[in-house]
Amino acid sequence: MIDYQAPLRDMRFVLYEVFDVAADWARWESLSELVDRETADAILEEGAKLVSKTLSPLYRTGDEQGCHWQDGKVTTPTGFKEAYQIYSEGGWTGLSGNPDFGGMGMPKALGAQFDEMSCGANLGFMLYPSLTSGAALAIDAHASEAIKSLYLPKMYSGEWAGTMCLTEPHAGTDLGIIRSKAVPADDGSYRVTGTKIFITGGEHDLSENIVHLVLAKLPDAPAGPKGISLFLVPKIQVNEDGSLSEANAVSCGSIEHKMGIKGASTCVMNFDGATGYLVGELNKGLNCMFTMMNYERLFVGIQGLGSAERSYQNALAYAKDRLQGRAATGAAQPEKEADSLMVHGDIRRILMNIKALNEGGRAFSTYVGQQLDKTKFGEDDERRKAAGLVALLTPVAKAFFTDMGLECCIAGQQVLGGHGYIAEWGQEQLVRDVRITQIYEGTNGIQSLDLLGRKIAANEGLFFRLFADEVRAFINNSENSEFVPALENALNQLEQATEQLLKQTADNPNTINAACVEYLHGFAYVAYGWMWAQMAEVAQAELQTGTNDNDFYKAKIATARYFYKRLLPRGSALLTAATSGVEELYGMSDEQF
Amino acid sequence: MIDYQAPLRDMRFVLYEVFDVAADWARWESLSELVDRETADAILEEGAKLVSKTLSPLYRTGDEQGCHWQDGKVTTPTGFKEAYQIYSEGGWTGLSGNPDFGGMGMPKALGAQFDEMSCGANLGFMLYPSLTSGAALAIDAHASEAIKSLYLPKMYSGEWAGTMCLTEPHAGTDLGIIRSKAVPADDGSYRVTGTKIFITGGEHDLSENIVHLVLAKLPDAPAGPKGISLFLVPKIQVNEDGSLSEANAVSCGSIEHKMGIKGASTCVMNFDGATGYLVGELNKGLNCMFTMMNYERLFVGIQGLGSAERSYQNALAYAKDRLQGRAATGAAQPEKEADSLMVHGDIRRILMNIKALNEGGRAFSTYVGQQLDKTKFGEDDERRKAAGLVALLTPVAKAFFTDMGLECCIAGQQVLGGHGYIAEWGQEQLVRDVRITQIYEGTNGIQSLDLLGRKIAANEGLFFRLFADEVRAFINNSENSEFVPALENALNQLEQATEQLLKQTADNPNTINAACVEYLHGFAYVAYGWMWAQMAEVAQAELQTGTNDNDFYKAKIATARYFYKRLLPRGSALLTAATSGVEELYGMSDEQF
Repeated sequence: MIDYQAPLRDMRFVLYEVFDVAADWARWESLSELVDRETADAILEEGAKLVSKTLSPLYRTGDEQGCHWQDGKVTTPTGFKEAYQIYSEGGWTGLSGNPDFGGMGMPKALGAQFDEMSCGANLGFMLYPSLTSGAALAIDAHASEAIKSLYLPKMYSGEWAGTMCLTEPHAGTDLGIIRSKAVPADDGSYRVTGTKIFITGGEHDLSENIVHLVLAKLPDAPAGPKGISLFLVPKIQVNEDGSLSEANAVSCGSIEHKMGIKGASTCVMNFDGATGYLVGELNKGLNCMFTMMNYERLFVGIQGLGSAERSYQNALAYAKDRLQGRAATGAAQPEKEADSLMVHGDIRRILMNIKALNEGGRAFSTYVGQQLDKTKFGEDDERRKAAGLVALLTPVAKAFFTDMGLECCIAGQQVLGGHGYIAEWGQEQLVRDVRITQIYEGTNGIQSLDLLGRKIAANEGLFFRLFADEVRAFINNSENSEFVPALENALNQLEQATEQLLKQTADNPNTINAACVEYLHGFAYVAYGWMWAQMAEVAQAELQTGTNDNDFYKAKIATARYFYKRLLPRGSALLTAATSGVEELYGMSDEQF
Repeated sequence: MIDYQAPLRDMRFVLYEVFDVAADWARWESLSELVDRETADAILEEGAKLVSKTLSPLYRTGDEQGCHWQDGKVTTPTGFKEAYQIYSEGGWTGLSGNPDFGGMGMPKALGAQFDEMSCGANLGFMLYPSLTSGAALAIDAHASEAIKSLYLPKMYSGEWAGTMCLTEPHAGTDLGIIRSKAVPADDGSYRVTGTKIFITGGEHDLSENIVHLVLAKLPDAPAGPKGISLFLVPKIQVNEDGSLSEANAVSCGSIEHKMGIKGASTCVMNFDGATGYLVGELNKGLNCMFTMMNYERLFVGIQGLGSAERSYQNALAYAKDRLQGRAATGAAQPEKEADSLMVHGDIRRILMNIKALNEGGRAFSTYVGQQLDKTKFGEDDERRKAAGLVALLTPVAKAFFTDMGLECCIAGQQVLGGHGYIAEWGQEQLVRDVRITQIYEGTNGIQSLDLLGRKIAANEGLFFRLFADEVRAFINNSENSEFVPALENALNQLEQATEQLLKQTADNPNTINAACVEYLHGFAYVAYGWMWAQMAEVAQAELQTGTNDNDFYKAKIATARYFYKRLLPRGSALLTAATSGVEELYGMSDEQF
């Protein structure tokens, strides 16, 4: 497997040329002191070095060795400890962290690029520091000042890692029925008891402490989701001066044997009256989780994108190198015993599919990142509108990036034929690794339900209108005659489908659950169509004004054409399916299945 | 993971009620002595016991332990040897073998059911005996009587296993460039030298001998595919009386570490002047392979189908058992803390997708099996027509069953959420195992090229017309007003797309390669539409005449409705994409990718 290279040129293209994020940064006072294009470019370049030189080479080792559990201790694969050290010392864990506590405070549009390259280079490794970043986000948003100043600096520096402890054996999607208990102690802390499963990084040998964020219920808490509270439970107790005290009553019972991301430990965690500290208000634990959820979900989506980019790089290198068969139009390399795979239409189709989906996805992740930044740094109207867009688009990004992530990893594997199936070339690991991204942080079915139920139906399409108006404004202002008519058609169909589903839901409450997955995909193709129209417009303008990067911009336009002709129609078929009614799903009894 | 159960009721439905294969058997003299419905049912029931009691329980063991190579010897997982013994003694290896040499001579329509259930129960295990059956088929068709009587009885009995040695490190799809050499010896045998890779069952500890069928070239052979010959190279040389002599110059250099089917050894085989015997004519090795190719390709397709059925059974059991969330229409099991997953629309959608694809696939595999039987047992017109249909439909079955096999295994995994990702529930193994079926025995890209290039364009649609005429005859004779109009539309679109592609190919030879994958899928949905219309018609008739199996037939009709509403439209979108031209695939230089 070749080592991963960050697609820096394309990242700069979406950041600066398509979405002009540097203008936002300059406009927002708190951010303008921290970052400009020059700083951001330096970060991207340092990031690119880190991921290709330190993370990417450990990709296969992580899978081959996996993690090992013995007597409650977990050993990570060879090299992870050293890489974690380098990663931590570079300050990457705190890249988007609060500067008041030692974070770098970088905007998400930039962070999204680093997320993509680091997850593309080594997803299994990246789960450790990224869980820490996520936990720190929740702590920063909801914990007391005392907790923040005690924990955040150590977490941003990577000295202490973090986890999220939500799932229990009987409760995954349905957190309302969790059984973990928290009993108040006299000193204001709590004694937390329960078993949590599927805890990524629940135990490992990378950091001197691990900070668990645990969902649990007080003995007298209301039933269901409204009785859940959030607790910070350190693996090793922490003195007031930040030094480590004695071990807490937290133990790792075992780790899972799983399909992929074997470099990441997936733990069963037992809390036996462990000392924990309330984060946020009592019984508002799920709300605290929701605060960070948009960041986390976008991040998990980007894991799919990064994996798909790696699949592209690997498959492309193989396709250029491997000689097999002859071009249908006659030998392209007559001096060799066969032509490269690149001459074959189906190979090009596979590569174009991946390329069009990845670049469309990169633009979309940057756009959503920019909206997240607006919710954080913007004011009033800008902030409110961005919040609606983020709420709407985050489940789309999470589910679609990861569904396409699997599609693209499988497609890349197919380019390699039998060599794609053996471990040597790394493609099969990409497939196994990326598969989890469709499942964790809310399965893609749950994302779809969130989109159509909570984000669209629950507010009668208010957020949806924000999005549709943005696309329509682009359509009305654009002078691009090549793509705009098709985009307008697609948007019209999406608007009609949305309206139709809202009506069908009124008649049959099962509609949302039955239609949501296909609807989300249909939605995403329209959103990507918008991204591609914008990118093509920028590329066209560059070519007209003269550029020394002709090949790059021409490839953009060629890929936009491919997307519009071969991929956008998928969306139309999906929306038709989504709106075709739910009767057929309930036409049989459970026993007839 | 629950143990696999053969879907016997549905197998009998397609065999006897939909395609009335027993009438064929009675009609064909050579077959009527061997099999009737009663015998076939007994075989199906014995097979079902074998697969659920002997093969299925070894499914996870095979994956967990995998195969081990040491000093050229390969050890298979615990229990494989005993299972192989039971399998062999039951005569299953020779199920479709030539009765003149100890085979059971069973028709393929029946064999297809056993293939499905055995591969559903344990794909990794099944590769050993099925490669033997495949090699025996080639030997039976092309080898001398002396070779046949020496080798076939021992292969049908499982005492000796078989392999196919085609791929070399630099030559997979493109066999024309293989480098293995065969030099004539004075005694009429050959000395075979070369390295073959990806050889399933190349070495193992299950049988006392292994019979390799090896593609190689004579020193003076013509270049390319027309210089390839086929040789039988035993691992241990065989005396004229069938007793074993000394070891041949064949060795296993290593085994591959791969994504799945870990119970099956995938070997690098070295032939160092090994003694081999010509099978068929010199330089006609590829033709000899083609003889058995339709059987093998259908069989590999059926591996996808069997895996998908197992995914369905596993996901369905989980969905019924797992309590999570509440029905959108109000609590379905108010006495429990949550409802079963079966109440959720998206879960039902996933299960209906799998069910509709599996049952459509089972009908199609039985239909193709029936056509294969016609080519073998039928006469004149019936035989010729069936040969055309088999040639046309085999690549469709291979590629579509396995592509849908992966889709259905992934979909089933998604039903289990996080539990689908860990090894415990077996779903992730299904995904890893089934993935190979899209790659080996000709990648699905190659199958698609075969369909559109060799089977359609090369004869200007002759075979295609055979198929379209069959579907149209059904449409014209059917009284089913519910499905026939949609089927007719779908057929019309397929006919138009086919015609259009033949024209586009004349203008641009890249068309076939660029359009073939989407075309094959579009074709398959129409074929499944035909299957479902036939099944619905039979079910409707049964319900009208009165039956004590109401639930079964009503479920058939409900599933047919689902297929027509939610899945058939996919075919239309695919055919539109397939015919949209190839310009976009060649709009960039290789460097711009």
